[in-house]
Amino acid sequence: MSTLFVRTLRDDPNDAEVPSHRLLVRAGYIRRAAPGIYSWLPLGLRVLRKIEAIIREEMDDMGAQELSFPALLPKEPYDATNRWTDYGPNIFRLQDRKGGDYLLGPTHEEMFTLVVKDLYSSYKDLPLSIYQIQNKYRDEARPRAGLLRGREFVMKDSYSFDIDDAGLAASYQLHRDAYIRIFDRLGFEYVIVKATSGAMGGSASEEFLAKAEVGEDTYVRCTHCDYAANVEAVTVRAPEAIAYDDAPAAHAEDTPGTPTIDTLVDHLNATYPRDDRPWAAGDTLKNVLVVLKHPDGTREPLAIGVPGDREVDQKRLEGQLEPIEVEAMDEAEFAKHPALVKGYIGPGALGEESTSGIRFLVDPRIVEGTRWVTGANVHGSHVIDMVVGRDFTPDGTIEAADVRDGDTCPNCLEGSLESARGIEMGHIFQLGRSYAQALGLQVLDENGKLVTVTMGSYGIGPSRAVAAIAEGTLDDIGLCWPRNVAPADVHVVAAGKDDAIFEFAESLVADLSEQGIEVLYDDRRGKVSPGVKFKDAELIGVPTIVTVGRGLADGTIEVRDRRTDERQEVAVGDAAAHIVSAVRG
Amino acid sequence: MSTLFVRTLRDDPNDAEVPSHRLLVRAGYIRRAAPGIYSWLPLGLRVLRKIEAIIREEMDDMGAQELSFPALLPKEPYDATNRWTDYGPNIFRLQDRKGGDYLLGPTHEEMFTLVVKDLYSSYKDLPLSIYQIQNKYRDEARPRAGLLRGREFVMKDSYSFDIDDAGLAASYQLHRDAYIRIFDRLGFEYVIVKATSGAMGGSASEEFLAKAEVGEDTYVRCTHCDYAANVEAVTVRAPEAIAYDDAPAAHAEDTPGTPTIDTLVDHLNATYPRDDRPWAAGDTLKNVLVVLKHPDGTREPLAIGVPGDREVDQKRLEGQLEPIEVEAMDEAEFAKHPALVKGYIGPGALGEESTSGIRFLVDPRIVEGTRWVTGANVHGSHVIDMVVGRDFTPDGTIEAADVRDGDTCPNCLEGSLESARGIEMGHIFQLGRSYAQALGLQVLDENGKLVTVTMGSYGIGPSRAVAAIAEGTLDDIGLCWPRNVAPADVHVVAAGKDDAIFEFAESLVADLSEQGIEVLYDDRRGKVSPGVKFKDAELIGVPTIVTVGRGLADGTIEVRDRRTDERQEVAVGDAAAHIVSAVRG
Repeated sequence: MSTLFVRTLRDDPNDAEVPSHRLLVRAGYIRRAAPGIYSWLPLGLRVLRKIEAIIREEMDDMGAQELSFPALLPKEPYDATNRWTDYGPNIFRLQDRKGGDYLLGPTHEEMFTLVVKDLYSSYKDLPLSIYQIQNKYRDEARPRAGLLRGREFVMKDSYSFDIDDAGLAASYQLHRDAYIRIFDRLGFEYVIVKATSGAMGGSASEEFLAKAEVGEDTYVRCTHCDYAANVEAVTVRAPEAIAYDDAPAAHAEDTPGTPTIDTLVDHLNATYPRDDRPWAAGDTLKNVLVVLKHPDGTREPLAIGVPGDREVDQKRLEGQLEPIEVEAMDEAEFAKHPALVKGYIGPGALGEESTSGIRFLVDPRIVEGTRWVTGANVHGSHVIDMVVGRDFTPDGTIEAADVRDGDTCPNCLEGSLESARGIEMGHIFQLGRSYAQALGLQVLDENGKLVTVTMGSYGIGPSRAVAAIAEGTLDDIGLCWPRNVAPADVHVVAAGKDDAIFEFAESLVADLSEQGIEVLYDDRRGKVSPGVKFKDAELIGVPTIVTVGRGLADGTIEVRDRRTDERQEVAVGDAAAHIVSAVRG
Repeated sequence: MSTLFVRTLRDDPNDAEVPSHRLLVRAGYIRRAAPGIYSWLPLGLRVLRKIEAIIREEMDDMGAQELSFPALLPKEPYDATNRWTDYGPNIFRLQDRKGGDYLLGPTHEEMFTLVVKDLYSSYKDLPLSIYQIQNKYRDEARPRAGLLRGREFVMKDSYSFDIDDAGLAASYQLHRDAYIRIFDRLGFEYVIVKATSGAMGGSASEEFLAKAEVGEDTYVRCTHCDYAANVEAVTVRAPEAIAYDDAPAAHAEDTPGTPTIDTLVDHLNATYPRDDRPWAAGDTLKNVLVVLKHPDGTREPLAIGVPGDREVDQKRLEGQLEPIEVEAMDEAEFAKHPALVKGYIGPGALGEESTSGIRFLVDPRIVEGTRWVTGANVHGSHVIDMVVGRDFTPDGTIEAADVRDGDTCPNCLEGSLESARGIEMGHIFQLGRSYAQALGLQVLDENGKLVTVTMGSYGIGPSRAVAAIAEGTLDDIGLCWPRNVAPADVHVVAAGKDDAIFEFAESLVADLSEQGIEVLYDDRRGKVSPGVKFKDAELIGVPTIVTVGRGLADGTIEVRDRRTDERQEVAVGDAAAHIVSAVRG
């Protein structure tokens, strides 16, 4: 500690939003270089390297091979897959001195696809899994929470290449198993959830989330079955169509002063009361207008119909439409569509075939035969008993309505959903053939016929993992690392002024080091009090803290478990053996 | 080999200029992603990682601490040191989505200085050596020779921080010793030479060059003493001033048709013969006009006087003037200076005090009292017996004249210089206080006074080392790695079709692997002939090649040294032990 390049801080950094960020800066693990861009100090780099080493071991064990692509990449391959455009402002672009276009790689699907195309030509070469651990770049609109959402970050990205879907499923399973081993070894609580597939299509996709209140991802789990999914990936089970032969004809009614669902429901119950049960928000059809911003800059209006008791969830909506971004339709844009009557918009004015021509997508619950109260496209008027399939037909469905605690599980239809928050730490993904098609990756099959290869894509963020593990394990007094990723095994504190204390501490450190134990030794003399040393040790968060102090006169030292705070007096003669067994479990 | 992600190529790649580049591509170590930007395939990555590991071990052993800075850096620190401007077109610049200016780090002096300023405040904290191994970026005008001059490359850069010059000298020596250990372990021929100090001043500076004909650097060694220097760093020993009381007055003579040194010398010998010895090129003073391009875009004319038997060496000139670039003065620029008469330019028209106002610097050999024949600034006329200090006084001296084999050694003044070419693999450098001053890095000294810290800067390029080592060790049939950096210890070739061959080879591979030997095993069956396997093994260049083939029937295998081609028949029972001892020496 007297020579280690570290200084702990008493005060929280101004820009730290979450506990892990505060503590990683205070304990001297990282420093901010620019928004979303961090420098790794020696302690932080050790944790990062340990995480990388665990990932590397498990990837190698499953037969994946490591290689390394540049971070600075030419535009052309990303043009071929359209991602140069699709990423919009989310990637860093630059030109070289000759005006050539380059980007800083956000992920490397293109480069991996091309290198396999370069080297391989036959089904006999497959399956193949290759990976790299490398800096990646995204120009996030809102970098946040320290390492949790950075603009330069470390990624392990791997890709599998198979001749057919069965092969892809097998490669996916191999990766899934390896990821489970990795996350188990990292030593923190995580959950595997269904995920959406992102920009380039594809089929099965799962995320590994660290459970964390500060997480940006919300996921749901079923109370009854083992269903778990990122809310963006929750698929509403559409009910069966309902017969509507007996349904009364749709009838427009005056509903003055009811531009919101609440005012409408109140008005309905006051003016048109029903016998069986009162009108509720869920009886109404809410039509929300948004504007889609395509990556090429074009803008497109879209109407989304959801039951009146639901909101449109922007993240779920964007999850469906990626890489398109979505924003609310503003007054100026609204004014361009005279068919739309604010507060009283109804299906009559919506749809590609309607006067407005605005595409109209609805929640999957809005199936044929269901009846709704909805806007009449006349100020102060709604239509009652509008029946889907009889009175209007939407252009399609979309998963945009919010998911709520208590919603029926779409898997078992018995349990209900409960939500929690998490940090995305891994994502595995059956990518399919889109990249191979775009870049012409084909191999000869057994019959000498060219077939397009199918791919999987698998990512873990080691730098984000540093923060997520810190976040998931820290306590009131500091960081509290799981053993496998801690910057050292043992933190030895020489607490006192006597030479005897330092002499014994040094011999203990030498002894432990010889046995392969990584020791952080607080050898500071002079003005640094034992209290300051203990506070530093607690902040830094090495799992075992050994104090060589006053007890030495009685022939004992203290061995403390940083997490449980359990403390044991150990005779100096047994010290090394005791510590080694504490470390090795 | 049946599953390794590698394919060897029979043909040389089109864009490969040097043997190492050709072979690294053909043997499946690297692939080009863009000009000067390469992807590392598994074999190449292994060599790179081994080099990095050796560097890391030696840096850690000397007490340097590893950290890691971003590659994507904000402009501000580089503005403070002026390098944002000084680098001119040689760095990659970009803007983020908010218009903030960033660069891809070419070296990290600024970031290291700032992090020490952030953490440290007292002389007690020093000395400190910190380092990183990381991707760096330079937008080279002419990337060439594969990994030898890339635009994205790996660098180990370290920096030392000391309170005073003695401390810096000690830190420099520690690094120098560590570098010697590193380069010894890498296992190839290198030489340590004096070097120039680059953009930001500084004092002592040495380079570690790999001896290589394809190298971009030319260095000289003395035949007599241990002097060795990059030609850019050779300092001519200025002779003593000569008394000129007896010198005849300068006299202009007609020398029609003598715009070149050769025509002038012929004319002098024909028209003004001397008694003691004939006129030679070395008696004339050649005045060369160039234009300096400052990083901020301004242009400045400069006149350089060298003895007529020497040329102005652009690299030596630029080495003195860095970051200024130099180009020849073109006709248009020349025409702006009416005082200059092409082919007959003399000191009378040069110098800051002259009519032209052009700064006039001369070779250090042109000392006071020396006599020269030089242009009279009149067409067809030269002045003879122009004496320095009497007839003209230059504005200063500059090391711009070329260095030649046979030149007197400037160190011992006895031996002569011999030149050779090399590849710069390491550079150690007493940087001094310029960065600390620019960025305000001060600490309190023993008396509580703020003093500016002095720094050293030390770099090795691991990615360039891969190519330089390949270049220095390859032979006619392929790569030929030194043991410490080879992608494997042993290449086992199963040569034949019998199951017995594969069975024994597999058991041998398992046996060797268990003993910690890294084996590349050519297990390919089917159409791959033994000849193809041998060619691949020779190309890939693992130091020991073991053939399990026809000899197996007689109970022997062949162990071959890739470098010496020495082959030994070894009894199968002794095979593993024999190979282990061959590997471990």
